[in-house]
Amino acid sequence: MRIIERDQIVAGIDLDLAVQRIEAGFIAFSAGKVQVPPVQMFAFAAANGDCCVKSAFIEGSETFTVKVSTGFYDNPGKGLPSNDGLMLVLSASDGRPLALLQDQGWLTGMRTALAGRIAARLLAPREVHAIGILGTGMQARLQLEQLRAVSACRRVIVWGRSDAELASYSDFATRLGFDFQATRDVKTMAEGANLIVCTTPSREALIARDWIRPGTHITAVGADASGKQELDPLLVARADRIIVDSIAQCRQYGEVSHALRAGLIDEAQLGEIGALLAGRITGRSREDEITLADLTGVAVQDALIAECALQALG
Amino acid sequence: MRIIERDQIVAGIDLDLAVQRIEAGFIAFSAGKVQVPPVQMFAFAAANGDCCVKSAFIEGSETFTVKVSTGFYDNPGKGLPSNDGLMLVLSASDGRPLALLQDQGWLTGMRTALAGRIAARLLAPREVHAIGILGTGMQARLQLEQLRAVSACRRVIVWGRSDAELASYSDFATRLGFDFQATRDVKTMAEGANLIVCTTPSREALIARDWIRPGTHITAVGADASGKQELDPLLVARADRIIVDSIAQCRQYGEVSHALRAGLIDEAQLGEIGALLAGRITGRSREDEITLADLTGVAVQDALIAECALQALG
Repeated sequence: MRIIERDQIVAGIDLDLAVQRIEAGFIAFSAGKVQVPPVQMFAFAAANGDCCVKSAFIEGSETFTVKVSTGFYDNPGKGLPSNDGLMLVLSASDGRPLALLQDQGWLTGMRTALAGRIAARLLAPREVHAIGILGTGMQARLQLEQLRAVSACRRVIVWGRSDAELASYSDFATRLGFDFQATRDVKTMAEGANLIVCTTPSREALIARDWIRPGTHITAVGADASGKQELDPLLVARADRIIVDSIAQCRQYGEVSHALRAGLIDEAQLGEIGALLAGRITGRSREDEITLADLTGVAVQDALIAECALQALG
Repeated sequence: MRIIERDQIVAGIDLDLAVQRIEAGFIAFSAGKVQVPPVQMFAFAAANGDCCVKSAFIEGSETFTVKVSTGFYDNPGKGLPSNDGLMLVLSASDGRPLALLQDQGWLTGMRTALAGRIAARLLAPREVHAIGILGTGMQARLQLEQLRAVSACRRVIVWGRSDAELASYSDFATRLGFDFQATRDVKTMAEGANLIVCTTPSREALIARDWIRPGTHITAVGADASGKQELDPLLVARADRIIVDSIAQCRQYGEVSHALRAGLIDEAQLGEIGALLAGRITGRSREDEITLADLTGVAVQDALIAECALQALG
């Protein structure tokens, strides 16, 4: 079995190719051509951590992938990153483990950011006057980085919990060429931006319905496990169009799960990003609509970014 | 992350300690003290293969385990073993991957054999006049090897599909000190033995109800995925006592799943091996009873044998 380190992966991967593959993967997923067994989830209450195991096999592929990712939210206080993880690629013809990608969670972070990039390309308003980012961590950075490929906007308003984190993000965003505004008030960010990405592991709604202006697109990637939530369910219900990565998964623990459970929306209102990419459903139909992409992360993304990482290494 | 090879694992592990740990694990599992997310299963129809991902966290433990095991049943024709796999051990306090056990499926095979040993200790009749083994593969060997620790019987009747496989098993069993009888007729094995272990990936019943004599114990480990079956459901219904490793899992795909679905038995008749080990339920109550242990393999076994393997390596 090949063992590949994070640095090799980061240096080698072709992200534009990964976007194409992940788009094809979303289409295959929504067409029912991917074996995606139930996600395995652990909650480590004492350590404020969680782990999920996501596995996928795309019918006809030579390999399948098992991905383990962890989030331990007190780690930064110990000098460790919050996220870690790895991916295993196995042969679908004889079962042998072929490669271990010791990406330390980077591939999971990146495929999540690429899904945000895809969602923004499909759903963002034509004129983005400011990008809003909820959170200051690794995912908050990857999302901004990737949005540059699909939006000409170079103004960003970032909400964070501490001045130190915001200062660090400021350096990052400025280096990327962004005009940067920090805020510790969520409303300021929400009212000031019309392309918003929510990236925190929050367990309570942070964005209220009435803070969002008509024409805004919101991508929410934080609610990837039961109990997590960044948006008021009334805001979810307010959206004119809701696109999810997986209806089955978002029903369980995405932003939409809270609104579904409260009876504020109906499952029939949800469309999958794979169906949108395939042209089977529509996305934004007017510039003043509020659109929401609720992305909980599906294993097919992991399988395809792992495949890209391996191909790049020859 | 430590990367540990199969040879190191096999050489280092203390199997008697592993038995103790796995027994404690079954008890914890049946007491609801283990996080065991749903098993992930893949079916690779074109390659006659399957894969399962089993993960477990025992509350209070410092680590948790993700196990990947594959079975590709045409592999022997390509000169490869049918089974492969590996185990990952991660920190339950910060999520970091700690060790990769590249056991190639050996630990899965061994923890399955140790569960068979535990079941035989608990349920076999006092006088075993012959051990019967259904199958000739790696699991068929590990089971016989492990039964030596809990049974004085040194006579074995083995059913196999080919003379070549039986000849190879004969060498193995003879080296272990067994008086060996080969048969290609399942009935001969079933009628001749009163401690029977079924180890094949069969998808149809191989043992009929009336072939089994009163007082016999049967351990069935082959039916570890949907569609697999070694015993006639009428035989399952004939058993006076049915012990399973996990009621939730056996309901889905163990030997008992077929009998449950046919309405031949009731779930209330099933008892878990962890409850039996804890003394909360009874096992064999008379020497002439037929007992059945239906073992589909629970992730807690994987977590504990991985822990033992790591401890042995210091």
